[in-house]
Amino acid sequence: MPQLDEITGPADLRALSGAEVTELAAMIRRFLVEKVTRTGGHLGPNLGVVELTIALHRVFDSPRDRILWDTGHQTYVHKILTGRAAGFDTLRRRGGLSGYPCRAESAHDVIENSHASTALSYADGLAKAYEIQGSTDRSVVAVIGDGALTGGMAWEALNNIAAAKHRPLVVVVNDNGRSYAPTVGGLADHLAALRTGPRADAGHLGPRGLFEELGLAYLGPVDGHDIEALESALTRAKRLGRPVVVHCLTEKGRGHRPAEQDEADRFHAVRAQPAAAAPARRERPSWTDVFGAELAELGAERPDLVAITAAMLAPTGLSRFAERHPERTFDVGIAEQHAVTSAAGLALGGLHPVVALYATFLNRAFDQVLMDVALHRAPVTFVLDRAGATGDDGPSHNGMWDLSLLQLVPGLRVAAPRDGATLRRALREAVAVDDAPTVVRFPKGSVGEDIPALDSCGGVDILRRAEHPDVLLVAVGTMATTCLETADLLAGHGFGVTVVDPRWVKPVPSGLLELGREHRMVATVEDNGRVGGVGAAVAQALCDHGATAAVRTFGIAQDFPDHGARGDVLAGSGLTSRHIARTLAEELAALDAVPRQGRPAPAAGHPAH
Amino acid sequence: MPQLDEITGPADLRALSGAEVTELAAMIRRFLVEKVTRTGGHLGPNLGVVELTIALHRVFDSPRDRILWDTGHQTYVHKILTGRAAGFDTLRRRGGLSGYPCRAESAHDVIENSHASTALSYADGLAKAYEIQGSTDRSVVAVIGDGALTGGMAWEALNNIAAAKHRPLVVVVNDNGRSYAPTVGGLADHLAALRTGPRADAGHLGPRGLFEELGLAYLGPVDGHDIEALESALTRAKRLGRPVVVHCLTEKGRGHRPAEQDEADRFHAVRAQPAAAAPARRERPSWTDVFGAELAELGAERPDLVAITAAMLAPTGLSRFAERHPERTFDVGIAEQHAVTSAAGLALGGLHPVVALYATFLNRAFDQVLMDVALHRAPVTFVLDRAGATGDDGPSHNGMWDLSLLQLVPGLRVAAPRDGATLRRALREAVAVDDAPTVVRFPKGSVGEDIPALDSCGGVDILRRAEHPDVLLVAVGTMATTCLETADLLAGHGFGVTVVDPRWVKPVPSGLLELGREHRMVATVEDNGRVGGVGAAVAQALCDHGATAAVRTFGIAQDFPDHGARGDVLAGSGLTSRHIARTLAEELAALDAVPRQGRPAPAAGHPAH
Repeated sequence: MPQLDEITGPADLRALSGAEVTELAAMIRRFLVEKVTRTGGHLGPNLGVVELTIALHRVFDSPRDRILWDTGHQTYVHKILTGRAAGFDTLRRRGGLSGYPCRAESAHDVIENSHASTALSYADGLAKAYEIQGSTDRSVVAVIGDGALTGGMAWEALNNIAAAKHRPLVVVVNDNGRSYAPTVGGLADHLAALRTGPRADAGHLGPRGLFEELGLAYLGPVDGHDIEALESALTRAKRLGRPVVVHCLTEKGRGHRPAEQDEADRFHAVRAQPAAAAPARRERPSWTDVFGAELAELGAERPDLVAITAAMLAPTGLSRFAERHPERTFDVGIAEQHAVTSAAGLALGGLHPVVALYATFLNRAFDQVLMDVALHRAPVTFVLDRAGATGDDGPSHNGMWDLSLLQLVPGLRVAAPRDGATLRRALREAVAVDDAPTVVRFPKGSVGEDIPALDSCGGVDILRRAEHPDVLLVAVGTMATTCLETADLLAGHGFGVTVVDPRWVKPVPSGLLELGREHRMVATVEDNGRVGGVGAAVAQALCDHGATAAVRTFGIAQDFPDHGARGDVLAGSGLTSRHIARTLAEELAALDAVPRQGRPAPAAGHPAH
Repeated sequence: MPQLDEITGPADLRALSGAEVTELAAMIRRFLVEKVTRTGGHLGPNLGVVELTIALHRVFDSPRDRILWDTGHQTYVHKILTGRAAGFDTLRRRGGLSGYPCRAESAHDVIENSHASTALSYADGLAKAYEIQGSTDRSVVAVIGDGALTGGMAWEALNNIAAAKHRPLVVVVNDNGRSYAPTVGGLADHLAALRTGPRADAGHLGPRGLFEELGLAYLGPVDGHDIEALESALTRAKRLGRPVVVHCLTEKGRGHRPAEQDEADRFHAVRAQPAAAAPARRERPSWTDVFGAELAELGAERPDLVAITAAMLAPTGLSRFAERHPERTFDVGIAEQHAVTSAAGLALGGLHPVVALYATFLNRAFDQVLMDVALHRAPVTFVLDRAGATGDDGPSHNGMWDLSLLQLVPGLRVAAPRDGATLRRALREAVAVDDAPTVVRFPKGSVGEDIPALDSCGGVDILRRAEHPDVLLVAVGTMATTCLETADLLAGHGFGVTVVDPRWVKPVPSGLLELGREHRMVATVEDNGRVGGVGAAVAQALCDHGATAAVRTFGIAQDFPDHGARGDVLAGSGLTSRHIARTLAEELAALDAVPRQGRPAPAAGHPAH
């Protein structure tokens, strides 16, 4: 019987006896609770798939057989069984073990995406590729949660998988009845009905249901914590020679009493424990908290406000609104496209929907925002949490695309508040707009102290005035702090820096154009990809209005950042006050060496306006 | 019995007898064939819904009741019955009747989007809005084709609609067994099975199937050309007080022999007939033809090439490849997300997929391109037809978003060929890339004559050399012709213009940066939205590399252009040689008035390089 850190790969599992396998499962659970409680990470989902993962790796021959994990945060057990137990002390740390599948880590990891509902489509493609190449002895297995099945992509894939009766593909439905929260919709009801059907203990075929109506074979329901039953069903599925759904019933948080008893989310994700020596300090509220409280208030004032979430009521801060206004709260499941277009429908019906999403997941519904909402000038407010760099969840969770993507959407307005006060204000302004969509975006984490404005100009908050107008520093949202620090550094070298926060970054406010003319250089700083973001929009607007100031744009490098702390991701793109100040000082020096004409030379001591 | 142009609204229909209604249907068919054959438009789909539309407008009280049409090209009959018959002479012409629902035209038009699979989500939102507002006497009806049901959004919506057993909503499935071509997948097989079930002639409930497993009531199948049966089923659905699917069987092209006999697409869309006086001339091949022929060739050379379409095999030019390589051709249905991610799976399995889509529909799968393909560096080639302005299909068909959207995708490369020769070359280069996704985009319509390059520089084709380096004119794809004309006009005024075609517009080729330094001004011209497009990328790259040339970007105004000819849309955004030349001449004159320093003044007669 090997210790966990002695397991080098799935082959080590196949010699184990039934009793040893049971002991292995218990060891894995103890290991997960101990490690993940310390490092933080997705605990509940992984406690739920201990037996399923063991059974998969005993029945299938990864990596020759391909096991694809939908929503990759359920792969900790898979990582342990493929020789990566030793890495768990550095889980989700920079340079350490990724919290998601990662092809650089292991040949057993096939897909790295953490967005839900994709695995069946990948699997369909892989199965087609193996068929074309004559590698029909290679099995393709996709593990997908019941929550992820509510996503439209999963349906598109099932429709295709079901159509090719001759092409083997094993779909394992990991049915724990939840995504973050209990799964919603007609499908969830249907799965619940299937759960009460006869068990597949001896490979018995279950009752005819939705999957079979669609043309898929169906095995189950199988007790997802009974390794023997799982292996029996998976072996049968493997030999069936056609597309088949294996319906496994699991419990999120299984075997860890505090998780089992947590009705909110079964310890979906836990935070890293603070080191014992660290003094207890009162945490500041998060951006999510500030939004959630303000929306609940607004809901009391405005009976036409409705809230929409895609399976993330609590994580997006809608719980307080939902408690006070349950009849005006809609959880549509992991279904961002429907979230957006049903919001358009609600708006056409005379209400004002607030769609709360993580920024990265809005990418799933770009077409719906563009065509179904903006083309119809529907007054829908999108609230994008986890915008900017999120860091430790890896590249597919960073919310670094929204400010670029949304620039393309005609008529849509975007606010990026810098603190709690401007978040509340932006939300109120957003839901007051009745002829166009609006977006309010903010980062992960705690809000800092409010940052007061000294003055405002054409819709732009002035946070600091230059002594002489060298640089207009345009701070997007939470980058205001970095920009003020940058201004201090530059001022120490004799440069005059005006720091402004446009608050509404799309369309470019007139005040920015006005102030831009008064400075030698305009620099923008955003926690969004550099390409096509606020900086690019400001540069284009200044050019269109004949401004001659040099423009410098700072943002996240247009790449997929590795996982690490939020600060690491930003620093990796040079989004630190030190780096920005040094760059601007050099650029200003270069401008001095070659002064531009057509603009009065800056007079020392001349205020910005 | 009114004539069609005397019908002012649905109320006019309700007094008609059964015989009169039958005569009305015949009149409408004659009218459609006569008018649409002349103007061009979507003939087949509308011939299929004549009786269904009449029945809907007799049973429901639009606009108080809301009738939503998925994929709005099936609304010609609806337009006739809501007082717009007189407009059909100007169908799809600028200022004339839109080929899609249009809220500016009529209170009976609720949604304007022509992208498929959205109507159920809108309907869910509207039904929720009416429930919250207590307007429970208002019916919400969504008409969706069986083809559109293969789109994931439709599943997301059905899952939500089915969950609220108390909230009435009528889903009319207009099942003609086709989208463009016959509908594919498990769902299509299931619908075919339902078709053989008992008829709902006396409101009889059909067999239990997929919709009922999901929790929806089901009525049907109903003969979609029997108005009495339709009215009976719709009336029953209206009174049911819960979500219900009415499954109607229709024939695309019904009643027009040439359409009925056309197995390719049942006259899905027909072209405008040329005026009788116009001389017959041999048409040049379309961009689609050139691509289709070259891909078929490549398929013979490269056994690892596979082709994927989302229900548009013939329209995207894949027919020739499919005929020669049927086992390597996959039609996934109207399911762009699955098209993209299953392509990633095919690539992970060692093949090179070519995904052929209309440019506007790629918006449906942005997240999949970004995360599932680019993050995985999967060598997938996307071929985007109908890029740029398409014009007469209205705002949701213009392919004016792709060059901006794709700028955001790390590692992805984009080619915009200017003619047939560069299209063939770009396609060959694209499928030769084995470590990153590639895109080849081209417009609707016929290819012009090949435009030869004089020379090349750092990956950039030089189409014309300046006598003296005033302007570097960067032509994106098919805008090369416009740019050469612009250069002629400017040369006539003494300005020196170099015209280049970067061919691969992302990443910005080094040659552009090099040439950019040698000119006083760089101007980019693209048939894509101005915001965040090639122009913005070139401007940012030049700035990053310290170039001081003034940059001017020309593109489509970032708005939703009204329907009209392609040329109208481009002209509306100033994308004509005359406008561009005038603008640049003014800008150059302004530069002369305020010469920039740090760069040698242009010497007359000095060649660009």
